[in-house]
Amino acid sequence: MKVYKTIKEVKSYRANLKDLAFVPTMGALHTGHLSLIELAKEKPVAVSIFVNPLQFNDKSDFEKYPRDVERDLKKLQGVDFVFVPEPEEILGERLTKVSVADISTKLEGKFRPGHFDGVSTIVATLFNIIEPTDVWFGEKDFQQVVLIEQMVRDLKFNINIHRAPIVREASGLALSSRNERLSDNGKSEAASISKGLFKMREAALKGEKNIEKLKQIYRDLCTLEIEYIEVVDELTLDPITSVASKSRALTAVWCDGVRLIDNVSLYA
Amino acid sequence: MKVYKTIKEVKSYRANLKDLAFVPTMGALHTGHLSLIELAKEKPVAVSIFVNPLQFNDKSDFEKYPRDVERDLKKLQGVDFVFVPEPEEILGERLTKVSVADISTKLEGKFRPGHFDGVSTIVATLFNIIEPTDVWFGEKDFQQVVLIEQMVRDLKFNINIHRAPIVREASGLALSSRNERLSDNGKSEAASISKGLFKMREAALKGEKNIEKLKQIYRDLCTLEIEYIEVVDELTLDPITSVASKSRALTAVWCDGVRLIDNVSLYA
Repeated sequence: MKVYKTIKEVKSYRANLKDLAFVPTMGALHTGHLSLIELAKEKPVAVSIFVNPLQFNDKSDFEKYPRDVERDLKKLQGVDFVFVPEPEEILGERLTKVSVADISTKLEGKFRPGHFDGVSTIVATLFNIIEPTDVWFGEKDFQQVVLIEQMVRDLKFNINIHRAPIVREASGLALSSRNERLSDNGKSEAASISKGLFKMREAALKGEKNIEKLKQIYRDLCTLEIEYIEVVDELTLDPITSVASKSRALTAVWCDGVRLIDNVSLYA
Repeated sequence: MKVYKTIKEVKSYRANLKDLAFVPTMGALHTGHLSLIELAKEKPVAVSIFVNPLQFNDKSDFEKYPRDVERDLKKLQGVDFVFVPEPEEILGERLTKVSVADISTKLEGKFRPGHFDGVSTIVATLFNIIEPTDVWFGEKDFQQVVLIEQMVRDLKFNINIHRAPIVREASGLALSSRNERLSDNGKSEAASISKGLFKMREAALKGEKNIEKLKQIYRDLCTLEIEYIEVVDELTLDPITSVASKSRALTAVWCDGVRLIDNVSLYA
């Protein structure tokens, strides 16, 4: 497995490959990332590890974001190359911004101003560097994958975007690099997020269409400080008034001073 | 010479080429465009003809923009393929915007709000469709080429941007598709633009460093309604207070209700 720090190295390796799958990450790799890489492995696979400063609206979240590249590299198996750029390799003067209207300001965008512009700008940049044919994203960051799919359609990137399901702990807690910052007690409290979401889903599958009633199920079960719980149309991410064919519940909560997100589909 | 209307056709042809030069145009081809194509011909050449609605801040300018694809195609020699998409092939839902901060709002950007965001968004899209290794722009749209160079650096497009000098009529008038809309009298008045710019250059080369004096030379010679005459640093496009090593004079004027631009370097 090669480890490249520069765009030049990537380009020189890339030139010899026809197809290339790509899994962009911010490091602190967990089983969720590894499942994406396993899914990607039908083709040669590139992984990037880059903690993107542009997507952190909260400076302290950026500073506290777990970083341990040595440990990350040990976890990677069967990957063709890992791109681990220094910030200046990616950021440069950075006057150019890629933004996806509307999607970037809904849901998470309301609470994290600028976050999604930072995501789309750096993901577009990584796409231009890696030139992948296939890119894998996890559904844990559901709005992110919707945003990237829209960007790819609009800017006509010649890339297939793939979605992979959320990987969860036995407790139901969605895997996240930020979980590393939770106390034991926080971790067990955080299990109530998925408990609440799964109960919403169960009720919806049984025929409950009333959004307020569904949200109340979540609020009754989740023991943490809820930033939002929303039920939206999966395609537009707009709130809906009654459960329909492609509805999804999304939430953000605070636990031990860490912001956690999760989501679940409300259809079979 | 192939004429393609769809991205799919472009992709299928592109797959068989290693290098590809690209000349994006809005049609109404003149000798300026043809000179770009000649310069590009060290490699296989693609030309696009697409009147980009996103870059017109003035609806009537968009409607009046000359369109004659049949005539354009006859002018193209030694080009591998021409991409002539319908608007829906390029625009789609179009929620994504690429914008280059600061550069997009200076000079022309002040008078044509949104213009450069429209340019960078569609040029990025065309880059993703055509996947060129080399792209040629004329210096007539000087701010445009600076903008695109910045975008390519920031988003790490794997593309060499080339600048080609302005092609002028014998009168000195810079070639432009919009010249087609000028009356005979307008055309001869419009020659005073380059006359003024060339005199500024001559004075600067002789040692005149005072910006106001240089601008006055232009104002004394140009007989048209001047929207702006500015002397800027070529790299930043910021106004300068005294002529320096990389100074350029840029202007926009109105003639017969048509907006014309031109520019000249103030160094040897």
